[in-house]
Amino acid sequence: MRHIAVIGIGTGDPDHVTIEAVKALNSAHVLFLPDKGEEKAALADARRRVIAAHVTRMDQREQAFIVPRRQAAGVTYGESVDDWHAALARNHAQLIAEALGPEETGAFLVWGDPMLYDSTLRILDRVRATGLDFTLSVIPGITSLQLLTARHQIPLNGIGAPVTLTTGRRLAEDFPATPDTAVVMLDGEQAFLALEDLDAEIYWGAYLGMPQEIVLSGRLGEVREEIAARRAEARAMNGWIMDIYLLRRPRS
Amino acid sequence: MRHIAVIGIGTGDPDHVTIEAVKALNSAHVLFLPDKGEEKAALADARRRVIAAHVTRMDQREQAFIVPRRQAAGVTYGESVDDWHAALARNHAQLIAEALGPEETGAFLVWGDPMLYDSTLRILDRVRATGLDFTLSVIPGITSLQLLTARHQIPLNGIGAPVTLTTGRRLAEDFPATPDTAVVMLDGEQAFLALEDLDAEIYWGAYLGMPQEIVLSGRLGEVREEIAARRAEARAMNGWIMDIYLLRRPRS
Ligand SMILES: C[S@@+](CC[C@H](N)C(=O)[O-])C[C@H]1O[C@@H](n2cnc3c(N)ncnc32)[C@H](O)[C@@H]1O
Ligand SMILES: C[S@@+](CC[C@H](N)C(=O)[O-])C[C@H]1O[C@@H](n2cnc3c(N)ncnc32)[C@H](O)[C@@H]1O
Repeated sequence: MRHIAVIGIGTGDPDHVTIEAVKALNSAHVLFLPDKGEEKAALADARRRVIAAHVTRMDQREQAFIVPRRQAAGVTYGESVDDWHAALARNHAQLIAEALGPEETGAFLVWGDPMLYDSTLRILDRVRATGLDFTLSVIPGITSLQLLTARHQIPLNGIGAPVTLTTGRRLAEDFPATPDTAVVMLDGEQAFLALEDLDAEIYWGAYLGMPQEIVLSGRLGEVREEIAARRAEARAMNGWIMDIYLLRRPRS
Repeated sequence: MRHIAVIGIGTGDPDHVTIEAVKALNSAHVLFLPDKGEEKAALADARRRVIAAHVTRMDQREQAFIVPRRQAAGVTYGESVDDWHAALARNHAQLIAEALGPEETGAFLVWGDPMLYDSTLRILDRVRATGLDFTLSVIPGITSLQLLTARHQIPLNGIGAPVTLTTGRRLAEDFPATPDTAVVMLDGEQAFLALEDLDAEIYWGAYLGMPQEIVLSGRLGEVREEIAARRAEARAMNGWIMDIYLLRRPRS
């Protein structure tokens, strides 16, 4: 049967890759890679560096695939994502059927870890539902969240305390409900600027694991403007940004 | 100045270690290792396997340290942890001062990732507060949470949805307040048995990354008794258990 490996490759530094991921990369007859035009060139370069550092297999093939754009107009967020995943699943099914021999292994390289705000596993579930059968392995990778805490040299959680992972879109709702620590990903709108709890500590990081890496931290009320300014500046300079932050309430 | 590396080593499989962690392990003049008597022999063995697989440096020294027991009687949980960390910090300060030359690097090997329900970083903060100065680096490692989702081949989060990470002790309070997904660690009491939401999905894993690995999943109401039974059986057979689980509410 065909085999698909979904491999977490960390966030750009080839040294963040695990030995298991290196083995999985080399077990693949085919690497499926998103077409450069559709994603940030910097991410494609980072992926390219990981491959160059770790793939030693000579007979490996590469198969580019096009990532369709998500249509957001006139539909709810859920419907829009649903349609988009359906389109991706159709493409992937065709791609796998055509590019991969019946006994071969193909690999998808996922930024960070495939479990964290990534849809590769959901899309492969849908591919299976189309009737194309394959075995699957999932290889964990170092996430942006782990880079964030490593750079700030902090624990994720307070002692015995819970943590909420959420998105910028939900922060205004989720942070007031968070007893201790929240981590925010996928925030294109600087949702931290609208929070009222100015005594919370914020630990922010952008381009983690990449040469442009920036980290800043402090009391939200004191540093939020500086973070917004650094973010805008870095984004203008690089043409794109990926950032993540942790918010911790002061001990009551 | 002295340098301390806090290295996440994953959960027992030497292949789960990153290249960065391998380099950090080999950069250390001294590995600080908890005294075997004080912890599960199986964890000490797993740590030993990681060292054997990856340390190539010949002149590395090992320094055992004793982990004092936490005194829980007659104090609150917070006080008990606080006293325990204070005792560990005193021990660590003495250990580092004695075992590490003024320009040398020492390493603490942390299970999983140092950010996740681990106190090494907090204790080293206290060591610094005693006046012993050192530079610090933190090396992420694959967590038990990542192994759990990889084995079940599931995303951590629902699409755009938040996730709560919590402990067995807090589950009864935190799960009813969780909109979508909760992950439970440090649960010695099978807190999932007391939940009322029997339609939630549970994804459970024990000894993840180790030879005894077990995973089970299903509707909470259908599989919770089986999980409790398998857990009790495995625990009796091995003399110890470490387990983690994810709970997902049915879509409303
Ligand atoms: C679609 S999610 C993918 C997350 C990825 N699977 C992981 O494990 O980190 C993208 C979000 O992850 C965060 N992110 C990913 N890489 C990052 C990096 N290098 N620096 C900072 N944040 C990053 C940002 O919050 C970004 O909006
Ligand atoms: C003190 S915490 C340390 C967590 C660790 N720092 C990590 O990154 O996974 C210990 C808890 O982690 C979980 N855990 C650690 N290793 C595990 C394993 N191999 N299998 C299942 N759960 C594990 C269990 O919930 C256990 O109670």
